Amino acid sequence: MKADAATSAPPQRLPAAQLKRFIADSLLAVGLPAKDAATCAELMVRADLHGADGHGIFRLPQYVRRIKGGAVNVKPKVKVAREAAGMALVDGDNGMGHVVMSFAAKTAIAKAKTAGAAWVGVHRSNHAGPASLYAAMPLAHDMIGLYLAVGNANHMAPWGGIDLLLSTNPIAVGAPGNETNIVLDMATTVAAYGKVKTAVQRGETLPEGWMIDHQGRPLTDPKRAEEGLLVPIGGYKGYGLALVFGLLAGTLNGAAMGSETVDFNADDVTPTNTGHAIVAISIAAFGDVDEFKRRVDKLAREIRRSKPMPGVARIWLPGEQSRAKFEERSKLGVPIPQPLRAGLDKLARELKIKALGT
Amino acid sequence: MKADAATSAPPQRLPAAQLKRFIADSLLAVGLPAKDAATCAELMVRADLHGADGHGIFRLPQYVRRIKGGAVNVKPKVKVAREAAGMALVDGDNGMGHVVMSFAAKTAIAKAKTAGAAWVGVHRSNHAGPASLYAAMPLAHDMIGLYLAVGNANHMAPWGGIDLLLSTNPIAVGAPGNETNIVLDMATTVAAYGKVKTAVQRGETLPEGWMIDHQGRPLTDPKRAEEGLLVPIGGYKGYGLALVFGLLAGTLNGAAMGSETVDFNADDVTPTNTGHAIVAISIAAFGDVDEFKRRVDKLAREIRRSKPMPGVARIWLPGEQSRAKFEERSKLGVPIPQPLRAGLDKLARELKIKALGT
Repeated sequence: MKADAATSAPPQRLPAAQLKRFIADSLLAVGLPAKDAATCAELMVRADLHGADGHGIFRLPQYVRRIKGGAVNVKPKVKVAREAAGMALVDGDNGMGHVVMSFAAKTAIAKAKTAGAAWVGVHRSNHAGPASLYAAMPLAHDMIGLYLAVGNANHMAPWGGIDLLLSTNPIAVGAPGNETNIVLDMATTVAAYGKVKTAVQRGETLPEGWMIDHQGRPLTDPKRAEEGLLVPIGGYKGYGLALVFGLLAGTLNGAAMGSETVDFNADDVTPTNTGHAIVAISIAAFGDVDEFKRRVDKLAREIRRSKPMPGVARIWLPGEQSRAKFEERSKLGVPIPQPLRAGLDKLARELKIKALGT
Repeated sequence: MKADAATSAPPQRLPAAQLKRFIADSLLAVGLPAKDAATCAELMVRADLHGADGHGIFRLPQYVRRIKGGAVNVKPKVKVAREAAGMALVDGDNGMGHVVMSFAAKTAIAKAKTAGAAWVGVHRSNHAGPASLYAAMPLAHDMIGLYLAVGNANHMAPWGGIDLLLSTNPIAVGAPGNETNIVLDMATTVAAYGKVKTAVQRGETLPEGWMIDHQGRPLTDPKRAEEGLLVPIGGYKGYGLALVFGLLAGTLNGAAMGSETVDFNADDVTPTNTGHAIVAISIAAFGDVDEFKRRVDKLAREIRRSKPMPGVARIWLPGEQSRAKFEERSKLGVPIPQPLRAGLDKLARELKIKALGT
């Protein structure tokens, strides 16, 4: 079939600079100030370069749709609403999540320089891309970063239940070494919903363990994904993690949580009141920075050189595969599958901007 | 067989006060000051009352053995070694973990009162019982508690590997409501090693999914548990969590991590240099405390009343089953299985103290 052949053709690769320009042009066209459009473009392409394909330029048509629908404020006054020595609450004024979270991460880093550690909560924000973007920001300042968020669509039920009350609330933690940074970024479900959507688009059978149906049986038929629940990691444990990360990133900050969550895939008009938390921890406050980095490197070497099981080629550290992708894609460009390309071309026509890569 | 019959007889129940007295007497007998012995007894029995059977009086013979072996300092000078407005590093001086962590939690709470949030790291500590004990301490101060620790025995390999480089590094988070507190306490493995030990003692087949062998195949034979690896929740995700929690609780604080971990089950003479982290977050710094508690209660009700799958009697909140056990055991006493009772009687004879319950 022609459609299948087109879908399975190797995707075109485009240089990061072209993607950035296209994203910035699009966001400028819907009213973002140049600086904010550049911030979003920079972070979205950073996601693409690191292999977070569901969080980069892929999201652009949806972001534009929600901006046009009035769900997102293109000219937010992002500000510190409350603060003390070791914390701040950032009011995102319903701006783009990338703009709000960049401000929040900067705030956390600045406060941790004097307080040693700072916990910054965020409310009235929006989807901000992959968690690792923000957990990695403190590393250049010799700090550890910890990021939590409430997801913008509920695909998880409390363990043993059916009602979709929880999102795949992610955690990311970044720690610097001299040779290796360790950056974990994970949803609290076995598979993120983006992976399910990709499999559904391709008509692929879902691996057992990703979703269950309302009787708790494995759901593998992509046509039935809509009636499925994402399975939390470790069953009740992943449910518990999603819940407490939601309390920390959402409830504490007066942001949406539980049944308050707005499904940003289905709704183009309602603000999501997305909550995040970003923590910056100054390594120098706890001890010698070089000593810490040497110990991270030593641990990384121990793990890399540890004995693999038969058939396992290599033991990976969290973040290592993303970094390999970053290096490869920085050289060869970001692969843009044909359906995504078609969507972006359509967007260019709608916004009357130059098409991607022209 | 007689032995089996004795093992399977319903365990005797003893009131908490008797357990506390026995623990305090034991620890006094091996040189702890009265105040510290009382702190340990209080927290160990709190663990027993909450159903954390592997973390209460069950651990007493091991603690005494390690104290007698010189591995633990009975008269530590626990102190703040470094501090800034939003953080502290506590030096446990190799004291009992319960004493050190009580001090660290108090420090975090006191600092969060002015800084809004405080991240307290701990080094040179020891096993401190269940994570929930400490994550729950900030709740009475209208704070959220977050606790991380490096476990004292490596039973997990990096995902895909065989070498035991990681422990079941736990996380606990507690948040207060008016009607319900939510307290999550979990290891980053599907089953904690204590559960495996209990099954092995009873000669029970291990459920599939708890352990794997060196080929990655399910290991269910309790006689082979020694050659098994604990399975992290969500495969590489649980491995990642154990790693970053270890970086935060261990490496950051100059405490043991990775291959530095001392197996406190096998070794009675070497200090473990156990690391922990306790974070206290003042709810009042972020917003209105009553509003927060009302939202926690609302979320708890939503989850409790949500629709269960067929055959599921009830949807639980994290911490709810422990609280039910606490209420039951506070009334009816703590069950002490016969083998544990025998071990405690032997301990009483060794220490020349009154037997438990006499």
